Amino acid sequence: MTPRIRHLVSVDDLSVAEIRELFSVARGFSEDIRAHANLCRGLISASLFFEPSTRTRLSFESSMLRLGGGVLTAAEMTSLSSAKGESLADTVRVVSGAYADLVVLRHPSEGAARLAAETASVPVINAGDGSHEHPTQTLCDLYTLWIEKGHIEGLDVVLAGDLRYSRTIHSFVYALARFGANIVCVPHRGFELPEYVVRRLREEYGAEPMRADASELGALAAESDVVYMTPQKPHQLSLFTDSRGLRVGRVDAVYMTRPQTERHGQDNAGELRTYMRLGQESMAAEPLREAVVMHPLPRRDEISSDLDDDPRSIYFKQAARGVPIRMAILALFLGRIQLEARPVEAVPSLFPIRAGTSPCPNPSCISHTEVRHVRQAFKLTSRDPLRAACGYCSQEIPFGLVGCTTTRHFHPLDSPSARKIRPDHLVLFRDLEQATALGFSAATR
Amino acid sequence: MTPRIRHLVSVDDLSVAEIRELFSVARGFSEDIRAHANLCRGLISASLFFEPSTRTRLSFESSMLRLGGGVLTAAEMTSLSSAKGESLADTVRVVSGAYADLVVLRHPSEGAARLAAETASVPVINAGDGSHEHPTQTLCDLYTLWIEKGHIEGLDVVLAGDLRYSRTIHSFVYALARFGANIVCVPHRGFELPEYVVRRLREEYGAEPMRADASELGALAAESDVVYMTPQKPHQLSLFTDSRGLRVGRVDAVYMTRPQTERHGQDNAGELRTYMRLGQESMAAEPLREAVVMHPLPRRDEISSDLDDDPRSIYFKQAARGVPIRMAILALFLGRIQLEARPVEAVPSLFPIRAGTSPCPNPSCISHTEVRHVRQAFKLTSRDPLRAACGYCSQEIPFGLVGCTTTRHFHPLDSPSARKIRPDHLVLFRDLEQATALGFSAATR
Amino acid sequence: MTPRIRHLVSVDDLSVAEIRELFSVARGFSEDIRAHANLCRGLISASLFFEPSTRTRLSFESSMLRLGGGVLTAAEMTSLSSAKGESLADTVRVVSGAYADLVVLRHPSEGAARLAAETASVPVINAGDGSHEHPTQTLCDLYTLWIEKGHIEGLDVVLAGDLRYSRTIHSFVYALARFGANIVCVPHRGFELPEYVVRRLREEYGAEPMRADASELGALAAESDVVYMTPQKPHQLSLFTDSRGLRVGRVDAVYMTRPQTERHGQDNAGELRTYMRLGQESMAAEPLREAVVMHPLPRRDEISSDLDDDPRSIYFKQAARGVPIRMAILALFLGRIQLEARPVEAVPSLFPIRAGTSPCPNPSCISHTEVRHVRQAFKLTSRDPLRAACGYCSQEIPFGLVGCTTTRHFHPLDSPSARKIRPDHLVLFRDLEQATALGFSAATR
Repeated sequence: MTPRIRHLVSVDDLSVAEIRELFSVARGFSEDIRAHANLCRGLISASLFFEPSTRTRLSFESSMLRLGGGVLTAAEMTSLSSAKGESLADTVRVVSGAYADLVVLRHPSEGAARLAAETASVPVINAGDGSHEHPTQTLCDLYTLWIEKGHIEGLDVVLAGDLRYSRTIHSFVYALARFGANIVCVPHRGFELPEYVVRRLREEYGAEPMRADASELGALAAESDVVYMTPQKPHQLSLFTDSRGLRVGRVDAVYMTRPQTERHGQDNAGELRTYMRLGQESMAAEPLREAVVMHPLPRRDEISSDLDDDPRSIYFKQAARGVPIRMAILALFLGRIQLEARPVEAVPSLFPIRAGTSPCPNPSCISHTEVRHVRQAFKLTSRDPLRAACGYCSQEIPFGLVGCTTTRHFHPLDSPSARKIRPDHLVLFRDLEQATALGFSAATR
Repeated sequence: MTPRIRHLVSVDDLSVAEIRELFSVARGFSEDIRAHANLCRGLISASLFFEPSTRTRLSFESSMLRLGGGVLTAAEMTSLSSAKGESLADTVRVVSGAYADLVVLRHPSEGAARLAAETASVPVINAGDGSHEHPTQTLCDLYTLWIEKGHIEGLDVVLAGDLRYSRTIHSFVYALARFGANIVCVPHRGFELPEYVVRRLREEYGAEPMRADASELGALAAESDVVYMTPQKPHQLSLFTDSRGLRVGRVDAVYMTRPQTERHGQDNAGELRTYMRLGQESMAAEPLREAVVMHPLPRRDEISSDLDDDPRSIYFKQAARGVPIRMAILALFLGRIQLEARPVEAVPSLFPIRAGTSPCPNPSCISHTEVRHVRQAFKLTSRDPLRAACGYCSQEIPFGLVGCTTTRHFHPLDSPSARKIRPDHLVLFRDLEQATALGFSAATR
Repeated sequence: MTPRIRHLVSVDDLSVAEIRELFSVARGFSEDIRAHANLCRGLISASLFFEPSTRTRLSFESSMLRLGGGVLTAAEMTSLSSAKGESLADTVRVVSGAYADLVVLRHPSEGAARLAAETASVPVINAGDGSHEHPTQTLCDLYTLWIEKGHIEGLDVVLAGDLRYSRTIHSFVYALARFGANIVCVPHRGFELPEYVVRRLREEYGAEPMRADASELGALAAESDVVYMTPQKPHQLSLFTDSRGLRVGRVDAVYMTRPQTERHGQDNAGELRTYMRLGQESMAAEPLREAVVMHPLPRRDEISSDLDDDPRSIYFKQAARGVPIRMAILALFLGRIQLEARPVEAVPSLFPIRAGTSPCPNPSCISHTEVRHVRQAFKLTSRDPLRAACGYCSQEIPFGLVGCTTTRHFHPLDSPSARKIRPDHLVLFRDLEQATALGFSAATR
């Protein structure tokens, strides 16, 4: 119904080449950030925030104002996605009708931005959808590395703290791998990178986790099992590896995260009393001499203020760089700049869930929290083995059998027939019982 | 005290000719909605919202930004109209002092906009005062009809759903009659148009309710007693009428409304489980073939999403048209465009309530909810029979006797003496007891 | 760390000459308030409001819009200054990084603006920090007097109502003394000017409180013990004084304040039932014939609406003048206008509290309410006698002994040794016990 509009739901909606070019644009803007107030004059962005996030909102709105555009603010929209209220789809359709030329959406449910993009008649920028994606934060982090180090490929980036529950870390780690940086995980004990993140790193970027010898990092890594992952060919690394694991030599950046206490169970309360704290002591080792210290902010106590005046501390600069990079993003999606780089070939297709109830296992996915005007959809993340994820929140969908809407037969996942079903004919079944209840029968052979 | 400033408290503050001209202005704006960013440059509108209404607020603010103006936002002013706080009159006086060049007011009490207009030194636009008026919504609805059909006079417009409690419907129905459209009421059973609305339609526009035969409308009207009202001379219709009532032939528009559950008592809960739902089935009948489907939004379930892609569904366009029509309104009241059409001759005069307590029967009228800086006032809605309404909320005031402040006599309503009293000398008494308590005596003859 | 940036934390951050020049600038702006929309084009102010104050916020934002600048609004920031959240210092550092060119801060804790100014990389304008300072309100009040009377020096200004708890009054009274106006205190009984305010008036401006004979003021002063203070040499006044006290002749302005009920204890509830009410009656006396009536607004019942149409009533004009004076302030601190007047010589130095816990006795001081990134500091308000105040909230610090960080000795306050300690070596002790506990010993002689 709507014309072909580009949205920024995920970092993957931009090609690596586009992102590199955006970095140059942002750097140009930052040279005199007040000199671009005509670029988006006459255009309006609307901040639709279904949960408060003052910092993210102000960063976007500042960027739009610096481009000379106007800003509509709905800072605390009550989540209307309930039996009593309006659907997110309708809200976005109305606001994108004539009110605004671009929507910046923040929502507590994973997948909300994807759903909004489906109905919007203007570009939607995802400003955080639950614990799913926050692409402009990731782009800001990458941009900061690029500005500081001149490149991203081949950098050694330490990720420290709560690597298990931090959305920021997960998005950043994929992006680092995509840009060819090496990842040094220094988790707070018990808060290691989740298995599904490691698997995606391995499958998409060939980055195998290796035990690492971080003894030279001193206090920073003293309490952690350090893991090293590189999207580069592992044989290049073998020289530096011995029985204690890969030697971690020089570090380019330490990216610290706060404990995501709101997502922790009660079990972890004890762990957090001893949560890592970055300070002069933990940054004293020689390999950290030129490592910039990053943090997505807000921080609490995990970075000591004794680091604030250290020239390596760039977390406030990092926050400030959110403005030029968001200016570049807004200008691009509002059509006021054109890039030479080629866009991504194709965004993964979504296929409708054709039978049964939503198989998405994530209770805070928008496909569950929204009661009106939402369809179920999945995307195929792998053909062999067959693997599917929710089309909205990207969580892996568990299924035990598949069916074909044409033949009305079901098949085991590892059967050749299963792999031959066209994705748009594919039905995912939890088990035999569900398959038969939905009227599918076993393939005759 | 303030110079002669025009306010938009009610649709009736604009003449029919002015409204038609505003529609042309709005259509001009909509041709390139981003091309008018100099018209109100240097001017500021203030959104004073004493209850949240994000959609209405964003529509006004977008309109102001598209005109190049600035926007001040108070999205959730606590109602200060209480013993502890500031009067609405004072708030408006301060904001209209130097802060803003125009005030957009939303308030939960009926009559708030009228009160604000009395003290403001800049134009006040009523963006909804309780269940009283919301003129820009009504103008947006009319404008949409005008754009879609090219004219309003003579159109047959179905009003469907909760016709009893919907402010939007009441304002719209008066406006339709004023513009010469015919009204086809298809209420959800038990939610018919209130008697006082019907009476005003009859008295002001000569529109008599007639039983209608809506059998050709199919599912849409199957469950309702359909009533037809036309501001045109009824004898023109007689040809089409038989014992089953007036035949409803071709429908130009179906205006659907949500159930106003917040204003329903508990008794109606049962009714709502079966509330009307507009969908492909109810829009299938031949006379509805060219009927556009309108809805003020937000909708819940009363319009099925299976209508969303139907070309007759224009509810999202309707919402979008709120921007050009509000641009036209803002530009007019800010003095940046002049109309050739003549304004309304005179706004009905308000007369002070000279004795006793406020006779307004509406407990949520601003004359009751505001404790400071509000006067009581009434307007005469009819001389014969004598009828008066609250000057703020427009609700009919019940009274049994009238007095004259000059003679200090009271009179029965239907007496010749009663009709001779000058309105500014008129006192309204509930009953004999009140009249004597206030020191009035029976006329000697 | 940050370059030399000027902030407006207190009225004392501006010299008298600068303030006078700002008044002229503001008057120039007010001649055509819509004609300055290019002065701050391309610049952004951020309203960071940690407690709601719609009126103050709108006044600042209107001023910025009238200057052609952009506005970022955080109208209801949750106070993040808690164990769970981000420090005020960090918040300000981020927002002042690239988001905004100036921060307007409102905060419930005294001293918050000083703390913010310490870390901000752009100017901070204090828009009220608890009951401490609200310099733009004070400047607006002075500006109004100046506009109305042509000068401030030598004016007789009545301050009426709750003089005890009103921050506005305290700031205004110092400013009046600084500009050479005479102060006539007409307090509601029991709500006299606090002792520490009187002492500062005496010590800094030589203004001694004198009993005054206000019988000629009639109803206005009938119930109060009137006190007169003048920053001019008292002997000039002796002629007008007899045993009944100084005669109050002609009054230039009556500044009325609401009862600050939120800061009163329960004891005072009774007093307030009889709170002063300014009206035609209390303004009837001859010496008040040319007295303008001022009020910082919002008012409740302390000014009767029968004064609203009186030409002496200028409280709505006063509110409106908040816009041109704030325009002048914003333009100055944003560097878009330069003044010829010399700035203040030096802002009082802050010295770190070097030992022990914070001695500030004010529980709502930012040095107590903020748990992260706040240092303790004091300023010396007098060398003889030794007196110190909290560097943030300005409340006097009680101490019984002082020590020297070099000698590690402690001394009685009135000893010659005490007075010789360099301020940056000075330690303040509650008592002997604390001094010894912190490892200091008595001076050997």
